[in-house]
Amino acid sequence: MLMTNKMHPEEISIGVVGIGLMGSSIAVALLVSGHPVVAITPLSEELKEAPQRIKQQLLHCDEAGLLCHPVGHYLKKLTVSDNYNYLDCCRIVLECVIEQPKIKKEVYAKISSAVSSTTIIASNTSAIPISILQNYVPCPERFLGIHWAEPAYMTRFLEITCGDQTQIRYADWVYEVAHFWGKEPTLLKKDIRGFVTNRLMYAVYREALSLADRGVATIEDMDKAFRYDAGSWMTLMGVFRRMDYMGLENMLETLKNILPQLDNSESVPLMMQRMIDMQAKGTQTGQGFYEYNSCEGQEWQAAFACFNKDIDRLAEKYPSKKFVANKDL
Amino acid sequence: MLMTNKMHPEEISIGVVGIGLMGSSIAVALLVSGHPVVAITPLSEELKEAPQRIKQQLLHCDEAGLLCHPVGHYLKKLTVSDNYNYLDCCRIVLECVIEQPKIKKEVYAKISSAVSSTTIIASNTSAIPISILQNYVPCPERFLGIHWAEPAYMTRFLEITCGDQTQIRYADWVYEVAHFWGKEPTLLKKDIRGFVTNRLMYAVYREALSLADRGVATIEDMDKAFRYDAGSWMTLMGVFRRMDYMGLENMLETLKNILPQLDNSESVPLMMQRMIDMQAKGTQTGQGFYEYNSCEGQEWQAAFACFNKDIDRLAEKYPSKKFVANKDL
Repeated sequence: MLMTNKMHPEEISIGVVGIGLMGSSIAVALLVSGHPVVAITPLSEELKEAPQRIKQQLLHCDEAGLLCHPVGHYLKKLTVSDNYNYLDCCRIVLECVIEQPKIKKEVYAKISSAVSSTTIIASNTSAIPISILQNYVPCPERFLGIHWAEPAYMTRFLEITCGDQTQIRYADWVYEVAHFWGKEPTLLKKDIRGFVTNRLMYAVYREALSLADRGVATIEDMDKAFRYDAGSWMTLMGVFRRMDYMGLENMLETLKNILPQLDNSESVPLMMQRMIDMQAKGTQTGQGFYEYNSCEGQEWQAAFACFNKDIDRLAEKYPSKKFVANKDL
Repeated sequence: MLMTNKMHPEEISIGVVGIGLMGSSIAVALLVSGHPVVAITPLSEELKEAPQRIKQQLLHCDEAGLLCHPVGHYLKKLTVSDNYNYLDCCRIVLECVIEQPKIKKEVYAKISSAVSSTTIIASNTSAIPISILQNYVPCPERFLGIHWAEPAYMTRFLEITCGDQTQIRYADWVYEVAHFWGKEPTLLKKDIRGFVTNRLMYAVYREALSLADRGVATIEDMDKAFRYDAGSWMTLMGVFRRMDYMGLENMLETLKNILPQLDNSESVPLMMQRMIDMQAKGTQTGQGFYEYNSCEGQEWQAAFACFNKDIDRLAEKYPSKKFVANKDL
């Protein structure tokens, strides 16, 4: 089972449970990679909307030159149903329902009663620890986190997370398979709050919000600094390579100067508290750190879709595969 | 003086003192923006090398389609000398010498004795507080930080920092002028350690190094997560817009969960300490978080130059100017 070099995606059915925005996008990513996909939802609205959305996303992939076959070829490999029993043929089932442990627990019971004992069950959660969720399945050693970024069929990001009871070989297998999905995955051997990317980004958010609270710089200016400075190397380098590139000579001095100055607060920053009090929902409601008129929320969605395509193409020019970390570490 | 809408760059001479890699690149940025540039260095090696390097960088600009005139047009507006007296016509003088307060102090004395009392003097430092450096000039209210990113003629980033004694109107003027240089500048009203970008990035470095120290994920995997997740929106959004885009509904819950888990250490992370003990210098020596053979250091420089051009072109498609922050903040 662990021999991915002999893997034929068309022989490996994958289940997706929950086919809202994220689940649909994941189903498309898997279809495009050659897998038959069984997409299950108990919600009648999702059941109605998903096939059309998946078709549209496949057309989007076609425009972006991601398809080897006509769209119809992929649609034939898609089953959409509210009947969990169709999952019985699946080697992996990905759960993408809302972030409520109670609902996830019910869903896992239904999945578990449909699949074989060799099936890997994975959650797309970014909020609930895998070590908690895996208690809800009969084979916790085969349960793990597979966390996608939107749009799943376009981004290279994938975070694979082990819970306390996960056997690493299943995570290693998914890690390998993920390369067939066009991903450059991250493997988290320990189940930590916020996983890697969220933790790293919240470290930034905390400091940025603290600087805003202190009136050091405006949020527009900080966004510009991030877009044009961090943005100018992020996709090329990541953070460790960036430190290598900047040179490590002055690091001791710089760390000693800066670390004691960083915000270490555990409480919610003032500006964020005001957002919460305003019930601001960001681009979706018109209220956020910025204001949005009725068109702008959609404009940002369109811009993000377009940017994603562009940055993905750009990233392709600079593959990260050839480099391995220093063995003396 | 504060009316930039009437500004004619060709009438405003700008001085650059210190024409190593960074100073040359800044001189080119200013030449391309139409300013006559007086480039001063007391170092005979820089004096010899700078004209050729500046010419090469102008050719690089030409290839990238950044020039309105032939390269020779810009070279005619460039003066390179070891004589500080040529700075007497300059409205702004940018100091780009090495990060040693003692040397900077000597340089400021020479600049101050050459320029008029209305000249703005600015440092490109990213290491020494502006509030300290401004004590070395006779008109501290006209002294500020202007911090560029490499290559200065290609990046949109510019950080303008007030020291304790800086009069905000001079910073505001430079902020406006910077738009003529093709920048989207950040204004820091308070002089904080590491300025904005360094602080925000060191918040990330601390957390990433802590996760590496704890064996949660490998540095290769964390770099991938950053390249393909943060990289997929950074240049489009910056951090506050990103929060708006992700939606702010779950922020309270998420912050309460994540903030207490983040690393708050003031001491140097173990892995970084090993780097320091190894005297690793990163891409320049072959030793860093990654290892580099003799070609790879240069390959990374070339890749960065190329990536920079690409990402700059991409950023141009998504201007940030039209959006202003929420007035209820």
